[in-house]
Amino acid sequence: MSHIDTVQQWLAQNNYDIAYISNYKTIAYFTGFESDPIERTLALFIFPDHEPFIFAPALEVGSIKETGWKYPVYGYLDHEDPYALIKSHIDKINPEPQKWAIEKENLTVERFEEIQKQYPNAQFEGDLTPLIQHEKLFKTPEEIEKLNQAGKWADFAFEVGFNALQIGRTEQDIVAEIEYALMKKGIMQMSFDTIVQSGANAADPHGAPKQMKLQPNKLCLFDLGVMYKSFASDASRTVAFGKIDDQQQEIYKVCLEAQLKAQAAAKPGVTAEELDHVARKVITDAGYGEYFIHRLGHGLGQSDHEFPSIMEGNKMELQPGMCFSIEPGIYIPGFAGVRIEDCVHITENGCEPFTHTSKELKVIPLN
Amino acid sequence: MSHIDTVQQWLAQNNYDIAYISNYKTIAYFTGFESDPIERTLALFIFPDHEPFIFAPALEVGSIKETGWKYPVYGYLDHEDPYALIKSHIDKINPEPQKWAIEKENLTVERFEEIQKQYPNAQFEGDLTPLIQHEKLFKTPEEIEKLNQAGKWADFAFEVGFNALQIGRTEQDIVAEIEYALMKKGIMQMSFDTIVQSGANAADPHGAPKQMKLQPNKLCLFDLGVMYKSFASDASRTVAFGKIDDQQQEIYKVCLEAQLKAQAAAKPGVTAEELDHVARKVITDAGYGEYFIHRLGHGLGQSDHEFPSIMEGNKMELQPGMCFSIEPGIYIPGFAGVRIEDCVHITENGCEPFTHTSKELKVIPLN
Repeated sequence: MSHIDTVQQWLAQNNYDIAYISNYKTIAYFTGFESDPIERTLALFIFPDHEPFIFAPALEVGSIKETGWKYPVYGYLDHEDPYALIKSHIDKINPEPQKWAIEKENLTVERFEEIQKQYPNAQFEGDLTPLIQHEKLFKTPEEIEKLNQAGKWADFAFEVGFNALQIGRTEQDIVAEIEYALMKKGIMQMSFDTIVQSGANAADPHGAPKQMKLQPNKLCLFDLGVMYKSFASDASRTVAFGKIDDQQQEIYKVCLEAQLKAQAAAKPGVTAEELDHVARKVITDAGYGEYFIHRLGHGLGQSDHEFPSIMEGNKMELQPGMCFSIEPGIYIPGFAGVRIEDCVHITENGCEPFTHTSKELKVIPLN
Repeated sequence: MSHIDTVQQWLAQNNYDIAYISNYKTIAYFTGFESDPIERTLALFIFPDHEPFIFAPALEVGSIKETGWKYPVYGYLDHEDPYALIKSHIDKINPEPQKWAIEKENLTVERFEEIQKQYPNAQFEGDLTPLIQHEKLFKTPEEIEKLNQAGKWADFAFEVGFNALQIGRTEQDIVAEIEYALMKKGIMQMSFDTIVQSGANAADPHGAPKQMKLQPNKLCLFDLGVMYKSFASDASRTVAFGKIDDQQQEIYKVCLEAQLKAQAAAKPGVTAEELDHVARKVITDAGYGEYFIHRLGHGLGQSDHEFPSIMEGNKMELQPGMCFSIEPGIYIPGFAGVRIEDCVHITENGCEPFTHTSKELKVIPLN
């Protein structure tokens, strides 16, 4: 059953007349066509018992047809009123859709009011977000394969990055080398801004690479991922650039143990919060609990910010096909940071990572 | 008067109790702190007669303080309920805010319902979007200076790109060279995906660079921009790679005339649609009207998608401080595409571009 069939079935079961998909990432998920329309309107309408249609900026119509989309696609020009046009296309299928389902997580109040203006007597209680999040939780074998390919490119990027470490180069220089090497291979988009952080900079888990020279005899943290056919990779490795001191050795060892234990524990039936606890306990027992300041992981698919969230309070049981990161970190302000991360998919009796770069401490000699 | 003062004054004048800013780009505009929180909650609350506060993921609190933000910032952890916490912080200032103003263009229905749950008796009629769009229309001298700097880096990028054109290289190779050169200079973020399109590929104004070799004796279109201190540049140039035929020469000439005429006509008092018409008339009179399939331009500031929209139907008069693109294009499917674009700011009696790369047809010899 296709993802669209699932929505059609759900609409019929819940007596909804129409589904309005507004998130371009969801549209990509359903159709294979990905484009961020920014302030323009891109929408997919699904009906319980009629073929769906896409409504898009005129500029995009050609690209949508090229993807093999077999249903209608209607374009609009910048000076036209998209919502009046949308109504005219819906009219041909159902002139009075009463019960609407919308993507509450994505639809803005402004667009919601626009569509309400066209249908002042309709009900908009239905929320597609939980359905879509649930559907996206379970990756198909084809999607897993794309995630594996995206992971291979992350492994390639680590290799480039490790080889690029040199005295005199900056964190930003290393990012430049990584992304250049990827683009030369045709990988044009990262899944998020590549992170390379040396020494104390790595203690800020949301910091950006600086125009600051790599610090010798310090840990250097890499966090990166690419987009491959609309699917993302995301992985972190921390390496020693030169000879690191005992405390850096220790936090690396503790973080690695937490990561390996959690990855070994990830399997069907374990809850998300239990998995978080497995890693957190290792770090807390070693005395570094206060320095592990984020959740253990997040879902992965078309982006690195999907469900499930691997954290305290999430009692969702892991099931085959779920994909997420396992990324404990220890961040000691003013001193150092370490994070080790693989994204995995849950299998029948365990999990498999999408990235395979060794997690044993790698020492890059000063040069 | 600071941007926040303007909002405070507007709230007081319109009897609103509180403004809820949800768009991270607006927060950057008001505070200087820019970070996309993705699925996490980042919010700025402004009151008519009390100091504002930021509510942010705990991970971001340090970075916000580093920007020099002089008002409170409250963090939350991933497992906490952000909206209950937000209410607890608002309670300290005003336990019963009745009249809210929200960013209808940005706030999602889901978040709207979350905040409604905390304040079931409040009114949420107020829309901050028009106020903020209007405020953003007029750039301060400091903002113009950042846009000028962003423009200089776009000029640098063109130079790199033109020099990189070589027989045997692909469109994507040229993108790689441009972005690598920028990153080596510390410019880590483009304002949108860099476009390099050769020959017939350039006929798709929203297409992406391909792993396809540059076509000799064809026009090659560049459209690119960088982010500089949270401000964007955006410019297009089309060059001849080798010896181009008469029709390519002609569409270049027509497009250039349209661009130059519109840029010369841009000044206070002219309406947006009049400016669009200036360029469109040149192209239509030359017989290529059907191939100019988008508006003449869009606003520019923190991104390349702001107001004003330079198009038919927009009767807004241009005024000093407004910034937008002037980018006519001619796209002949299966044959070639040309687009020439500068972004400009309106001055007292005309306009000034942010980019200065020559617009005369540049011929890059085959090599």
